[in-house]
Amino acid sequence: MRIVSLAGGIGGARFLRGLLAATPDAEITVIGNTGDDITLFGLRVCPDLDTIMYTLGGGIDENQGWGRADETHIVKEELAAYGMEPQWFGLGDRDFATHIVRTQMLNAGYSLTQVTEALCARWQPGVRLLPMSDDRAETHVVVEDEHGRRAIHFQEWWVRLRASVPARDIALVGAAEAKPAPGVLEAIHSADVVILPPSNPVVSIGTILQIQGIRQALETKVVVGVSPIIGNAPVRGMADACLTAIGVPTTAQAVLELYGAPLVDGWLVAEEDGDVSLDGVEVRARPLLMSDPEATAALARAALDLAGEISR
Amino acid sequence: MRIVSLAGGIGGARFLRGLLAATPDAEITVIGNTGDDITLFGLRVCPDLDTIMYTLGGGIDENQGWGRADETHIVKEELAAYGMEPQWFGLGDRDFATHIVRTQMLNAGYSLTQVTEALCARWQPGVRLLPMSDDRAETHVVVEDEHGRRAIHFQEWWVRLRASVPARDIALVGAAEAKPAPGVLEAIHSADVVILPPSNPVVSIGTILQIQGIRQALETKVVVGVSPIIGNAPVRGMADACLTAIGVPTTAQAVLELYGAPLVDGWLVAEEDGDVSLDGVEVRARPLLMSDPEATAALARAALDLAGEISR
Repeated sequence: MRIVSLAGGIGGARFLRGLLAATPDAEITVIGNTGDDITLFGLRVCPDLDTIMYTLGGGIDENQGWGRADETHIVKEELAAYGMEPQWFGLGDRDFATHIVRTQMLNAGYSLTQVTEALCARWQPGVRLLPMSDDRAETHVVVEDEHGRRAIHFQEWWVRLRASVPARDIALVGAAEAKPAPGVLEAIHSADVVILPPSNPVVSIGTILQIQGIRQALETKVVVGVSPIIGNAPVRGMADACLTAIGVPTTAQAVLELYGAPLVDGWLVAEEDGDVSLDGVEVRARPLLMSDPEATAALARAALDLAGEISR
Repeated sequence: MRIVSLAGGIGGARFLRGLLAATPDAEITVIGNTGDDITLFGLRVCPDLDTIMYTLGGGIDENQGWGRADETHIVKEELAAYGMEPQWFGLGDRDFATHIVRTQMLNAGYSLTQVTEALCARWQPGVRLLPMSDDRAETHVVVEDEHGRRAIHFQEWWVRLRASVPARDIALVGAAEAKPAPGVLEAIHSADVVILPPSNPVVSIGTILQIQGIRQALETKVVVGVSPIIGNAPVRGMADACLTAIGVPTTAQAVLELYGAPLVDGWLVAEEDGDVSLDGVEVRARPLLMSDPEATAALARAALDLAGEISR
């Protein structure tokens, strides 16, 4: 079976671990969000790709959900001692090495797709990990505070401000020009099923869907999504702040409508959100909490079962 | 008093610490060798400038003589886990931060002189530290082994091969085009005395002297040198291998002749090399071993005393 899954960071990575456990023989291609990528200290950082790579490769900090296990922060402390900004982004020493390798390869002319493949040669995540695009497409957030109305990088809003300043809007700079990375459309076209894991519907899945051609390619496929909203609250993270920014209520129903019926064929919601419905979409209520590996694998299996049901 | 000192790495840095102790009120400008500089993992490394900066700023690994005190090597281990080369250059985590800052500033368009000044704002070395040049002038070594005759970067010969493969020649690539860094010639012109510390006469002092205009500027000044050779052996390091490569005997006499009489006015040698002489040069035998801070300060004082004697 050939599966394509879109993915953001922590939630997507955890779901993928369940998917791998549920279907060890499947050929899984992951299309990772790169809208959160940022250049810090001259080094290219791809938070979502790395979270997937580290999680599936066994290098993740399990408690934190991002970054490396057994991490130290000497380089960051030294950069602060030099007065270097920003100091609000938590780069550890092990993680720095990844960004040094990536930056050196990018500067040597390799594409992000090639770099990601090279990094995965070490981590062996068990999936084919593709960035959504090799082009720059960067999520910016429009905020308004005592400094006035301005657009800031997503990470500045998310990490530095912890989404505490209301976002007026969220926009993907470069969306019109960015092309899908090599292999992305091909993987979708040859997929038996496509999964939208419970990643952030705006700045993760929503970002990937904005890259030209991806939504259209997905519309021809059996696509099953897992609601990132349970009982009107995000399962984790601050997805509600992102949804509010684009005028979408924080409900499983609203996220389904955001993705839309031509795109989604199946939608898994929590028991308490069982009244969600949309024409053309098979909705099933299932336990959505990825509380442990078994529950996560069961959730992945439920998504595949629904896809199978739709395909028949 | 205005003093200019050329300098390589460890030996030069230790001498400078003695010079600062000997003349706390002097205005000291150090012209540092950048011929050993190398780009590793996409990061610009300036070993000699950093050794001076760390030594005078209190951050040096005192036992090793280079690198940071209290150093860890997580980033290097991670880079090796990614299969990144070279693995023979010992970059520590604290040190990495320096190279990240430098590289980011260079890529942003600052000159090495400006970057060095910015780094020194943290370290407060007590001297004005200038690179010999902002241009690329890189020491290459011609070696001949089972792989044939070829030129390699100085660091590959010095660090990876530990100078165990005989050098056929040593050449400064870019020497003809490299200009002195801003402030270098001005500092020399306004200096009361110039010191050549016991740094490597070929790849440290010799390299600086090859930058256009520096030797000529020095010839108009009272220049006192400290022999890096005691009793036909280098005080430390592998200066003998470098001297042999350019056909110069490893003696205090030969190094004095290499620098030459129009350049050097005073020359300090060890007691056992007391018979060294060259027309136009005042030679004095003094204890040259920088065995502790007091001995080093006494050596610096001896150099300044000889300069004072020559000036009178």
